[in-house]
Formats: sequence, structure tokens, C-alpha cells
Amino acid sequence: MPRGTIATPAFMPVGTAATVKAMRPAEVRATGADIILGNTYHLMLRPTAEKLNRLGGLHKFMGWDHPILTDSGGYQVMSLSDLRKITEEGVAFKSHLDGSKHMLSPERSMEIQRLIDSDIVMAFDECTPNGADYDTAARSMAMSMRWAKRSRDAFDVSGGIGGDHADRAALFGIQQGALNETLRGESAEALIDIGFDGYAVGGLAVGEGQEAMFGVLDYAPAQLPEDKPRYLMGVGKPDDLVGAVERGIDMFDCVLPTRSGRNGQAFTWNGAINIRNAKFSEDQAPIDEKCDCPICHQWSRAYIHHLIRSGEILGAMLMTQHNLHFYQALMAAMRRAIAQQKFSDFASEFRRNYLKS
Amino acid sequence: MPRGTIATPAFMPVGTAATVKAMRPAEVRATGADIILGNTYHLMLRPTAEKLNRLGGLHKFMGWDHPILTDSGGYQVMSLSDLRKITEEGVAFKSHLDGSKHMLSPERSMEIQRLIDSDIVMAFDECTPNGADYDTAARSMAMSMRWAKRSRDAFDVSGGIGGDHADRAALFGIQQGALNETLRGESAEALIDIGFDGYAVGGLAVGEGQEAMFGVLDYAPAQLPEDKPRYLMGVGKPDDLVGAVERGIDMFDCVLPTRSGRNGQAFTWNGAINIRNAKFSEDQAPIDEKCDCPICHQWSRAYIHHLIRSGEILGAMLMTQHNLHFYQALMAAMRRAIAQQKFSDFASEFRRNYLKS
Repeated sequence: MPRGTIATPAFMPVGTAATVKAMRPAEVRATGADIILGNTYHLMLRPTAEKLNRLGGLHKFMGWDHPILTDSGGYQVMSLSDLRKITEEGVAFKSHLDGSKHMLSPERSMEIQRLIDSDIVMAFDECTPNGADYDTAARSMAMSMRWAKRSRDAFDVSGGIGGDHADRAALFGIQQGALNETLRGESAEALIDIGFDGYAVGGLAVGEGQEAMFGVLDYAPAQLPEDKPRYLMGVGKPDDLVGAVERGIDMFDCVLPTRSGRNGQAFTWNGAINIRNAKFSEDQAPIDEKCDCPICHQWSRAYIHHLIRSGEILGAMLMTQHNLHFYQALMAAMRRAIAQQKFSDFASEFRRNYLKS
Repeated sequence: MPRGTIATPAFMPVGTAATVKAMRPAEVRATGADIILGNTYHLMLRPTAEKLNRLGGLHKFMGWDHPILTDSGGYQVMSLSDLRKITEEGVAFKSHLDGSKHMLSPERSMEIQRLIDSDIVMAFDECTPNGADYDTAARSMAMSMRWAKRSRDAFDVSGGIGGDHADRAALFGIQQGALNETLRGESAEALIDIGFDGYAVGGLAVGEGQEAMFGVLDYAPAQLPEDKPRYLMGVGKPDDLVGAVERGIDMFDCVLPTRSGRNGQAFTWNGAINIRNAKFSEDQAPIDEKCDCPICHQWSRAYIHHLIRSGEILGAMLMTQHNLHFYQALMAAMRRAIAQQKFSDFASEFRRNYLKS
């Protein structure tokens, strides 16, 4: 990308409201992140896309000069906003912050992501809810494909409106189709027909469980172009990442390392631990003996246990930094294993240590 | 001190619960702090003094290897704990965290501060409440002086109990006497008679206002030895610090730059501002054009306004770092003015800019 190379498979920390929570941008970069994710839904409400644009775009605003991927807002408008109404035109909703009325459509989503100056723009889609029956999933997917075409058209025009944004940015389509291979195949064909710079597998990590998710990933990536990045949205746990890379996924985003870190869950090469647990109260070992992050070099489990139990901001800071470092170290280890053509050995060894507990 | 030189006049950031809130120790040091303060009351309850001792002391626990001053616990046991009972022996109280019963006395306070491995130990005293009448203030001061003697005796013995703590650490006495010059004088004489490594002016910054505080500071420092550090506890606003240094004070601690920073109050050479104010929402200037801290180099008022309004942890981090940097820059400027024998000019110029708004 013009703003920097993204080594794949890549994990994108989530920077919802123009900040990866509890981390300065330089600290995020130091964990090894090449790209972060911003949430269109949150940013359109506060500070607003227009204000971000007047302030020079999201990169300048928050002080991150590497690539940023923005989601389309479609997922979060459904999960967070009040009084949603979905039509063929788009989604009308009220802000969860102040009740103000807004509209998201493929065209408005493209406009917002252009105003934000996003590097990877996601097509506007409907995330089919977990458990939808075949007809519901088929209708939802078909509408998302019509929205994908409208997103493509609006994105291409926005190069003219907003200057050269379409020259600098990439546009990704999002495959839907629930857990159905036929619908997933039809969705992939529709997207390929439109043509995108990358392709996301959407509609997973919504409660279906790892087995069902891997079931879809056994065929979904192969339905999408091999020469374009394939992005699994909203995933996931460390073992989810390894299993998804094994099945052909190149990109991920997830709030897990940041959100659960703030709540006391630390990821280690020997599995996740909850640092709040009383057994860590006098444990002078670092979070993970195998980790070379700055947190594990300097502080004990006992100290971080104390901070998290005491509700101290520094606890959130140290846990987030460790977890993001762990996630990036995991991605780097997978990239090395792929380069050495030893991914299968790596994955087995990883699972032996990570899942043993 | 064995753990490092403290340039005076010095401002000590408050690290209540083994952390200066929202700051890593290296970031605290980078603002220019030579010493931080830890709160005996909080630490004795969580993680407890005994646990801190088993974990190698507070410095190792939190990763701060410069001096630490600990208060005696006397002030906070009165303001924070439940069901206090004060006798000549000390203060019996229930923890505000879990209702557990505890006792603080001169002897126990010395023991706790030794277990924590504090560099500057404060004598156990009663902070006379604001507005106390003469008889109450006199009785309270007299008991604090008896407690000061017991603190001195227990501290000196603790070198034997705890190894060489008394060889490494300093013990400060605390002057009381409310707003009465005679009582302040009697308190100073009692402390000097006992003999301490430094002397604090206690019982101020409890609601009496700047004019009354400066009224006491017009005579109190002169009642204390000129060749020992004189420490004004719990102060204060930037203009309080300048006025107190003018009157002979060498050391300060206060939660203001950290606590009010988290709430959106930023200190600048032109006065304090509330970054939450709507007028900053598109202000691309730094918090303070005259400030050379990392925050003012990188981020705009508009961004920090957004973070604080959104309740983001990063907002607390950046505001705290700026405010602590401002406080340390103010202390450094005062030290330079003193060295150049231009303090009076400096103070006038500071007040002209800081108080003009």
C-alpha cells in the first residue's frame, strides 16, 4: 500500500474510536502491526467523518501513518445502534450515543470511508445472523451482493469526488452465505464478477463455534481468487488464527487481545491465563517465559495481577501491549513457517503447547 | 539518596497503588521526576506490606528504581477508611475495600514503610482538620508530636529488625498546628528536639484556601531547619507551587496533575484549560504551544478532546503525561531561576502569564 507494506498473514489490532485502546500508536507499531482497523460506525458518530476530513484524515488525527482498514459500518450498525430499519436502500438507525438519526448505505459508507482517508475500504454488506435458515441467508446474501456492486460503483466515482482516493485505496468485497457452501460459492462468483482488490469471508465468528467456522473455511477461501488477499473478519483466538491460516486466510482483525487483555486474560504460548486468578498474586515470573515483549522483560505476574485487581489503567496498558505483541509474534512465526514450507509442523507444535491445558 | 539525587524544589508525582496512574515508570522518569510518592494506606491494604516485602519491595514490584517517599497512612486512614477510632495508641479502622480490620500506629506505620523499603519515611501524625478551634488544634498537634517521637524511636530500631533500612532511608517529621503561628512554632520546636532528616509542613491544602495557606507559609518554613528539606504535603496548583517555593518550600506532592488530567484539565503556561470544552473539538494546536513534551509534539487538542470525551484510556495517558511534564518543567524553571538568583522575576512573569485568564 502507499502507506506501507503489509506482511501476510496479518493481524490487525482494532482501533475502534481512533485509538487502539490503552496504546500509543508507536507502541502498536512496536508490537509488529503493519495495519490497524478503524470502525466506520463509531467514527461517523464521533468525531464524525466530516470532522475527521477537515482535520486531515484519521491517520493524522491519531498519529498512525501506516495503513488503516475501515469496516463498512454494516456489522456494528446492526449490533450497536438503536431502532434500525433495513431496506434495499440501506440501514436507517439512531445513534447509541445521543439518539441522533443516521443512514448508512453503500454510497454513504463509501463516502465516509473516503472522508476518513481509509487505505482498505470494505464494501457495505449485511452480516447474516447466525442460525439463519437457507431462504433468509440466500436473500440476505443476494442483497449484500447488490450492495457490493453499489459499493464498487460509489468507490470508483469517489476518486473523482474526493480527489485521488480511489487511486490510493483498495476496495474489498465481502462474501456472505452463512454456513452453506452453495450460497458461499454464489456469493464468491458475484464478487469476482464485480471485481475487488481483496475478498473478505464475512458472516463468521458470530457464535457458530470453531468447528462450524473451520467447516466453512475448508471451502470458502478456495472459492475466492488465490492472487488476492483473503480476510477473515472478526477472528479470533490464537488457535482460530492458526487453523484459518492453514485453510488459506491472509488477514484477520479481532478485539480479543485488546478487550480481553483489559479484563485480565493474557495469551501465552502455553495457552491463555486469567491474571486475576489468586494463584498469580505472588508469582514473580513474567506473563510468559517464552515471550520477548517489553512487558515480560520488566514486570511480574504478581504486579500485573495487582494492577488488574485494583482497576488500574496501567494494568490495561501492560496487558494490551503484551497481548498485541503475542498476536504479532504468532503471525510472524506463521509467516516464517510458511516461508520455510513447514507450516503443518508449526501448527501441530503450536497446538500441542497452546491447547494442552 | 542511595537510589538517586533529588533536585529541589522537587515535585513528586503520586503513585498511590504502586503505579502513577496511566503511566509506565520510564514515562514518569522521562517527565523529569526524581522521586515519586506511594500511599501507605493503600499499599498496606493491597497488595499488603508483607506481600510487597516478600516480592522484593515496592521499587522492584513496580519497576521504579529511583527514590520513593511514602506517607505515613495517617491522612488517608482518616479520609478513606470506615469506622475509625483514634486513641493515643493510634487509629483502628476498617478497610474501604473489604471491611477488614486494621490498626495504624507510629510503630506499625514505621514497620509498613520499612517493609515497603521506602526511601523517605514520614512520621505518623494526625492531620488536624480545617477549621479546628485552638484547643482542638493544640491537643491534636501535641499528640502528633508524641507520635513523632514514637515514630523516630521505631524507625531507629527498625534498622536492627529489618536489616539496614534505617541506614538507607530518611525519616521526616511533620509540623502541625493548623493556622496558628504559636502552635506551628511549638510543633517545630518539638520536631527539632527529636531530630529528623527533613521536615514537612502538614495540615495545609485541606480547604483553607491559598491566602490562608500562604499566610502560614509566611512563617512556617522559617520555624524549621534551613539546612534540611522542607516539604509541603498535598500541594498543589502551579501558582501554589511558585508561591510556596517563594516562601522556602523544597518538596511537593499532589494528585492534581494526574487526577485532574484524567478528567480533562490540562495545565499550560497560560493557565489551565478543560480539554472537554467544545471549542477544542477542531483545534489543531497542541495543548500548549510553549510545551516541549512528546504529547504536544504529536497530538492536537482536537484529538485529545475526542479521546477524553469518548472515555478512552489513551486520553488519560496523554493528559497525564503532558501534565506531569508541565509540572516538572515548572520545577526545573524554578530551580534555574533560583540558581540565577532571579526567582522573584521568574515568579512575577509566571503569574502574569498563568493567572491572566
